[in-house]
Amino acid sequence: MPDRDGRPRRVVRALGVDPGLVETGYGALEAGSGRVTVLGAGVIRTRTSDPLDARLERLFDETHRLLQEYRPDLVVVEEVFSVVKVPRTAILMGHARGVICLAARQQKVPLLPITPAEVKRALTASGAAGKGQMERAVQARLGLPRLPRPSHVADALGLALTGLSRVGARPWP
Amino acid sequence: MPDRDGRPRRVVRALGVDPGLVETGYGALEAGSGRVTVLGAGVIRTRTSDPLDARLERLFDETHRLLQEYRPDLVVVEEVFSVVKVPRTAILMGHARGVICLAARQQKVPLLPITPAEVKRALTASGAAGKGQMERAVQARLGLPRLPRPSHVADALGLALTGLSRVGARPWP
Repeated sequence: MPDRDGRPRRVVRALGVDPGLVETGYGALEAGSGRVTVLGAGVIRTRTSDPLDARLERLFDETHRLLQEYRPDLVVVEEVFSVVKVPRTAILMGHARGVICLAARQQKVPLLPITPAEVKRALTASGAAGKGQMERAVQARLGLPRLPRPSHVADALGLALTGLSRVGARPWP
Repeated sequence: MPDRDGRPRRVVRALGVDPGLVETGYGALEAGSGRVTVLGAGVIRTRTSDPLDARLERLFDETHRLLQEYRPDLVVVEEVFSVVKVPRTAILMGHARGVICLAARQQKVPLLPITPAEVKRALTASGAAGKGQMERAVQARLGLPRLPRPSHVADALGLALTGLSRVGARPWP
């Protein structure tokens, strides 16, 4: 993300989000001076016993909280239209992704949608990498002491990494 | 919708919403003393040239505005999981429906999801009624001078009517 004079900014923060109604993974990264730091990562969970609107409200409020905590320069959110899923699951995911996009908009943080295949290509040079391969790639890029888990967190960190590289923040050499 | 003593309330207001990212239909009805009045109806449109987050914000803000204008006792929103659609369209509709549900939740208005088939059965005694048949049924029930158009408005009014009958407001004799 260049500054006004077209020079790369020293530090760029990205919040990766893997949206889901049951579990939304997130990972916040800061890139600067050729290295990347994990600011935080985790999962927002909603209770399946709660009504849909209450679950959406929790996800919306938690997304706002993350945006305020990490102050990202961009939100990298999984682009999902290419994925074939159970229709019900895909539509519910759409509800979740909708309130996440809304929260980013309300805090004026630009959204960058990236497909899972793009993340895989960026991190493993194969658009068809498996879950385990992706987790190991994210672990290696970020120098994590252990594998990022659950897989939603690995996906969110992979999104943030790929997003950073897209905006010229060079999260890896 | 009974009051605290279990008696039917004299007047009940329902806002029907047929969610869509391009066009969301709405219709606000008031039921009382055996008759139903149309408080307002229309369509919220978003520009396809705008980014997704901007469109969701507009839909969210407009839904809040409708809730404040009509002060409904319930929001009747189309339940969509049974409908098979183009996956991309269904997922985008999910985004739209998500921010509508969130707005209702934030204003503490109960949500009542009703499937299109239930609306058709309630208004025409057939779960497989066509668009034109539904429009005529809504027109007749509400004594409208002309057919409700576009069809999203007819759908929203049908949802509100069916929702009112479900909560015991007896919108028809």
